[in-house]
Amino acid sequence: MAINYPNPKKTTTKLINRANLGMTLEGDIEATNQFYLDKQRAVIYKKPTPVQVVTVSYPARNKAKITEAYYKTPSTTDFNGVYKGYYIDFDAKETSSKTSIPLKNIPEHQIIHLKRIVDAGGIGFMIVYFSVYNEYYYLPFDVLYEHYLSSINGGRKSITYETFKTLAYPIKFGFNPRIDYLKIIDDIIIPSLS
Amino acid sequence: MAINYPNPKKTTTKLINRANLGMTLEGDIEATNQFYLDKQRAVIYKKPTPVQVVTVSYPARNKAKITEAYYKTPSTTDFNGVYKGYYIDFDAKETSSKTSIPLKNIPEHQIIHLKRIVDAGGIGFMIVYFSVYNEYYYLPFDVLYEHYLSSINGGRKSITYETFKTLAYPIKFGFNPRIDYLKIIDDIIIPSLS
Repeated sequence: MAINYPNPKKTTTKLINRANLGMTLEGDIEATNQFYLDKQRAVIYKKPTPVQVVTVSYPARNKAKITEAYYKTPSTTDFNGVYKGYYIDFDAKETSSKTSIPLKNIPEHQIIHLKRIVDAGGIGFMIVYFSVYNEYYYLPFDVLYEHYLSSINGGRKSITYETFKTLAYPIKFGFNPRIDYLKIIDDIIIPSLS
Repeated sequence: MAINYPNPKKTTTKLINRANLGMTLEGDIEATNQFYLDKQRAVIYKKPTPVQVVTVSYPARNKAKITEAYYKTPSTTDFNGVYKGYYIDFDAKETSSKTSIPLKNIPEHQIIHLKRIVDAGGIGFMIVYFSVYNEYYYLPFDVLYEHYLSSINGGRKSITYETFKTLAYPIKFGFNPRIDYLKIIDDIIIPSLS
């Protein structure tokens, strides 16, 4: 007799609803950070996207209008801030793959940046969203770094979903906060530091 | 008999030299942070200036050209990062006054931001440059905040140079690093935390 597995279409429906609400991974994290800020739990911001300004005109007094500019590649990660005195630094990535996240999705300069952060005593990590499963993971930097080092030495160029199941920490999606990554920091990361 | 005070013009000459070299307070701090980064002492960056992008054109594939944008007021301070596991957050201000720095030079949103930082366990401060004296000071957030609270309750709207002499910490200008504010954090701030 066949086991009645939950219909995977349910997950898909959820995703469509989420998309219909105009939510994005970045938007969900920004809403989470705003929640933390409002509750006075943490002060964590998204850094502005760096822009190389080429031409500025002044159509009115004290009103600078940028008329030519280009996006620059950020040299760091998108998010940083402070929680319980700890320096927090991370970026967020989404993958539509069922089996892994390709390491090419994570720019090398972000890995170098996070390595410096961890070496300076900060907490560095990635939030990875597997869209097909609608699952969020807290990927500690050391796990990311091992896979990165392995990849540049000829190893596989991705981190498998199975690795997330064993070495990363699931973050439950909620109403408010939406992506409660501080819970992982409270429950798992801070206790491991002391 | 008149006391032969050092000629104040000497300070002016120094300033002109500094200006001739194209240095700015912000540039000096960025050079300092780069020195700390290169020496693996700390990871502290200036946040990009936020820009509100209105129109983007695509003159070539994968090449986004911003054709209309405006500078936005940052909601935080300019600099943040991590040192010895401590979260560091500050801004830098310059005054040409001989007697004080006006509090209107420090936007209220920066004071609110730094208050949140300190409440969350971070190290918050201002670097203040008195250009007439060519002197740099580390102004701890608590001193700034007392003066801010006093000013909104009818007190004076500036922090006097005398206050800097007694409650702030001088930072020596050097060749490399130029503005060694981590020395103040090492010698005075970290010992006061434990």
